[in-house]
Amino acid sequence: MPVLVVGSIGLDHIKTQTEEHADLLGGSASFAAYAASFYAPVRLVGVVGHDFPEQHKTLLAGQKIDLAGLEVADGATFRWSGEYEADMNNRKTLSIALNVFEHFSPKIPASYRDTDFVLLANIAPSLQSKVLDQVAKPKFIVADTMDLWIEIARKDLLDLLKRIDMLILNDSEAKALTGETNVLKAGRKILSWGPKYVTIKKGEHGSILLSATETAVLPAFPLEEVFDPTGAGDCFAGALIGYCASKNDASFATLRAAIVHATLVASFNVESFSLRRLAKLDTAQIAERAAKFKQVAGLA
Amino acid sequence: MPVLVVGSIGLDHIKTQTEEHADLLGGSASFAAYAASFYAPVRLVGVVGHDFPEQHKTLLAGQKIDLAGLEVADGATFRWSGEYEADMNNRKTLSIALNVFEHFSPKIPASYRDTDFVLLANIAPSLQSKVLDQVAKPKFIVADTMDLWIEIARKDLLDLLKRIDMLILNDSEAKALTGETNVLKAGRKILSWGPKYVTIKKGEHGSILLSATETAVLPAFPLEEVFDPTGAGDCFAGALIGYCASKNDASFATLRAAIVHATLVASFNVESFSLRRLAKLDTAQIAERAAKFKQVAGLA
Repeated sequence: MPVLVVGSIGLDHIKTQTEEHADLLGGSASFAAYAASFYAPVRLVGVVGHDFPEQHKTLLAGQKIDLAGLEVADGATFRWSGEYEADMNNRKTLSIALNVFEHFSPKIPASYRDTDFVLLANIAPSLQSKVLDQVAKPKFIVADTMDLWIEIARKDLLDLLKRIDMLILNDSEAKALTGETNVLKAGRKILSWGPKYVTIKKGEHGSILLSATETAVLPAFPLEEVFDPTGAGDCFAGALIGYCASKNDASFATLRAAIVHATLVASFNVESFSLRRLAKLDTAQIAERAAKFKQVAGLA
Repeated sequence: MPVLVVGSIGLDHIKTQTEEHADLLGGSASFAAYAASFYAPVRLVGVVGHDFPEQHKTLLAGQKIDLAGLEVADGATFRWSGEYEADMNNRKTLSIALNVFEHFSPKIPASYRDTDFVLLANIAPSLQSKVLDQVAKPKFIVADTMDLWIEIARKDLLDLLKRIDMLILNDSEAKALTGETNVLKAGRKILSWGPKYVTIKKGEHGSILLSATETAVLPAFPLEEVFDPTGAGDCFAGALIGYCASKNDASFATLRAAIVHATLVASFNVESFSLRRLAKLDTAQIAERAAKFKQVAGLA
C-alpha cells in the first residue's frame, strides 16, 4: 500500500565538531519519504523554490517517490542551519529562512486523496490538519511534531490529536506537552487526548510504544559513532509508517515490528550527513542489521 | 553456589518531594546482599556500630543472609542523608557521617574464603582490593563503583580493574572514567583495562553489557512511579551475581539473563523506601514481572 508523506523540504547547512556541509537535502518530508520508500511506494507533498537543486529531486525520484505533489513556488527553498556540540544530543539552530515555506499550504493531488497510510511529518499542526481536510478516509494517520509547536501552537496540536491514530514525539517533548515528569504518564495523558497510539522516542536510549492496553519498550541499535543526527526522527517516522503500509496493517503487533525497522533505518541515517547513507542503503543491509539487532537486544 | 557480598552498611535519611524517612537500612552491601539472596545463599561482610538497630539485622538474617562477616565496631553506624528532586534522576547528598566506616578494613571470615562468586559492592576501590587479597580463587568477581571513586581514587580503581571479571557502573560514570562521550566506546576502553565484561547502567533507559566480542542491550522495566531510587544500582549488582551463582556460570548468555533479573529486582526496589519492597518480594512476583517484561520488551 502507498504512503502519503507531507512535511518540510529544505536545504540544510550543518556543522559538527569535525565537519561542515552546505546545501544538503533536508526537511522532515525528505527524510521521512526516503525512509518509507524502503518499504512502500511513497507520495510526497511539499514545497520548494526554483533554486532547489535538480540532484535532490533526482535522488528522491530515483527511489520511486512520486513527486506529483512537490510544489515549486516562486522564491527560495526553506533553509536551516544548525551546529552540533561534541555531545550530539545537543544542537543549536544558527539560522532559519522560511522562504517559500512561509506561505505553504499543502495541496493534496486528487490522485493521492485515497491514500490509506498518511504521515504528517513535522510541520505546523495547523498545516497537518489541512492535509486531513483533503484526504478521504485513511486507515492509519501518524503525526510527528517538535518542541516548537508545543510552545507556540499547542491548541492546534491538541486539535490535531483528535484526528490522528498515532503521535510520535521525543521524551522531552512528551514531558513538555503534558507537564508530566514520567514518560509513561506523559504517554498515557497524550492517549487520553485522542490518538490510539503514542510513540515516544528517546534517541540513543530507544523508544516506547503505548496504546490504552499495551506497552512496548525497545532499545536503540547501539552505535559507536554518530556523524549527523539530523533527520533521524523523521526517518524513524517514515520507516514506521512504510513498514505498516507494506503489511497493510496497524495492529499493535505490526507496530512493534515497525518500530524495530524505524530504529534500524534511523540508525543508518546518523552514519552520514543528509540522506547520503540512506542513498546507499538496500534491503539486504537492513535485513543484516535487523538480525544483528535481534541478537544484541535479545528479541524474539 | 553462595555469593560473597562486601560493601557498606548504613542508616539512611531520605527526603523525596512527598516523603521523608529516617534511620532506614541502607548501604551498598545491604541492598546487594538482599537482592542476591533471592537467587543464592549470601555471605555478608561489612561493619556497623553498636547503634545498628536489631530489626535491620533481623531483616537480613530472615533472608538467610550469613552475618558471620558482619563486624560490630565501637562507635556509630555509617549515616547518609540525601534529598531527591522532582526528577528522581537528580539527588543531592545533605550529609555523610562515616563513623565506624572511616577505619573499616574488610575481614573475610575463613569460612567465606573459598566463595566462587564475589561482589565487591560500592566502597572505596582500595577496600575492594583488600577483599581480593583474602579470598582463594573466585570463579567470578564483580565490582560496582561510583563517581566519587573515579574522582578521588582513580588509580586504585584502575588497579582493581586488572583483578576483576566485571565492572558495573552507570553511563555518566563510564564517560567520566574514560573521557569518552559514547557509552560503547567508554565500555570498550574499560574492557581494555582488564575486566572481561562491563555493564553500563542507564537508569530508566536500561543497560548495556559488553565483552570483547559480544554486546547486549536491554531496556529498563517501565514504571509509572518511582518512590525511592536509593539502592537500585546495588540491587541490580546483587541480583546479577546472585543469578550467576544460582547457575554456577558466568558465560555471556547467562550474564544476559542475569541482567534481566538485575533489572527486575531493581524495578521492585524503587517502589518503596529502603528494603521495604524487597522485604515483601517473593520469587513468584519476580517470575510474574519477568513474564511481563519479556512481553513488553519483546524478548526471546
